[in-house]
Amino acid sequence: MTEPTPQPADAASQIDFWFDFGSNYSHISVMRIEQEATKRNVKIVWTPFLLGPIFQSFGWNTSPFVLYKQQGAYMWKDMARQCAKYGVPWKQPTVFPRRAVLPLRVALIGADQPWIGEYCKKIMLLNFVADRDINASETVAEALADLGLPADEIIELAQSEQNKLRLRENTESAQALGIFGAPTFFVRGEMFWGNDRLDDALDFATRRINQWRDLGA
Amino acid sequence: MTEPTPQPADAASQIDFWFDFGSNYSHISVMRIEQEATKRNVKIVWTPFLLGPIFQSFGWNTSPFVLYKQQGAYMWKDMARQCAKYGVPWKQPTVFPRRAVLPLRVALIGADQPWIGEYCKKIMLLNFVADRDINASETVAEALADLGLPADEIIELAQSEQNKLRLRENTESAQALGIFGAPTFFVRGEMFWGNDRLDDALDFATRRINQWRDLGA
Repeated sequence: MTEPTPQPADAASQIDFWFDFGSNYSHISVMRIEQEATKRNVKIVWTPFLLGPIFQSFGWNTSPFVLYKQQGAYMWKDMARQCAKYGVPWKQPTVFPRRAVLPLRVALIGADQPWIGEYCKKIMLLNFVADRDINASETVAEALADLGLPADEIIELAQSEQNKLRLRENTESAQALGIFGAPTFFVRGEMFWGNDRLDDALDFATRRINQWRDLGA
Repeated sequence: MTEPTPQPADAASQIDFWFDFGSNYSHISVMRIEQEATKRNVKIVWTPFLLGPIFQSFGWNTSPFVLYKQQGAYMWKDMARQCAKYGVPWKQPTVFPRRAVLPLRVALIGADQPWIGEYCKKIMLLNFVADRDINASETVAEALADLGLPADEIIELAQSEQNKLRLRENTESAQALGIFGAPTFFVRGEMFWGNDRLDDALDFATRRINQWRDLGA
């Protein structure tokens, strides 16, 4: 297959990145997305949401990787392989899935800030390499302080009623959009599910795979 | 990333290909696997099985793409995109998932025959392009006759008690191996799930991705 000539990206070229810090495949995408988006001149819209309520709407009280033993056993192997393939640090955590409400609220505060990418990577590495309780305020404060940010101030903003409501609203929006897992990407209104589709989504953003529009994509 | 130099494949280099003709992502792998395996000098072990009893063991009375509406809606978009990406013919069938007991029994008869690959492609194209009832004996007979094969004789063999038992045994083996979906590939005892992992599985077969063994893969 011949590689199409890269086209200059649209000024409006962007990818909405829906993620939950408790989601293992979101870990791989958080670690990869900035580099891949920068290569293609695509803007990332960081969109934290809670996967738990969405799983609950399917009648699942936890991750399907916990509910279905075979799928779970395979997933841990697949994670090790995929992380090795992409050069992403990885160690299977002792608690899965981890609650991530506080770090997700902080991600909402930081969504438009230059530190969002580094912050998200730090939280993911704390969960999926350092095996830490990422929902504890000490852990989140540590991540923020490492980035030279005013941790207490940001956490206070994150815990405001208004910001708590915003995370619930994001989760409701995810449900309304038909999101059923994480990571999920939206580009020009089209859904792409899973780290396995990150490259396709970014290529669609740069209009290198424009024909998908005509596929009812 | 630099591409590793292709190594001459092991004489024993093989991939066990577990598939069900009713499975949509198996369609893409059936259409691709011979070309990809030939490129890498990997032998394909065609291993038909019934996905239905495995889904039943999870409490599902049909495909999860039917049970979970959002996942199903996304899957049809993803299928159109993936087939376009790989150049695989595709039309969404009006019946899904289709029962495929008879064509799978015939695949068992043909598993070691030179016609197995062409036969499997024909059945998949009948299901996922021509929108035909692939479980009807006329349809299977037509596929076999198109390949210049004695259809009646093969179907009679396929419907023997001994062969029916073999398909049940394959399905039990799939369950014992922890298979939870299709397509699934086994290479040197390691499981790879889904068309998205076909290339990884084949690369593992040629020992280009040997380090996965050390990852607890």
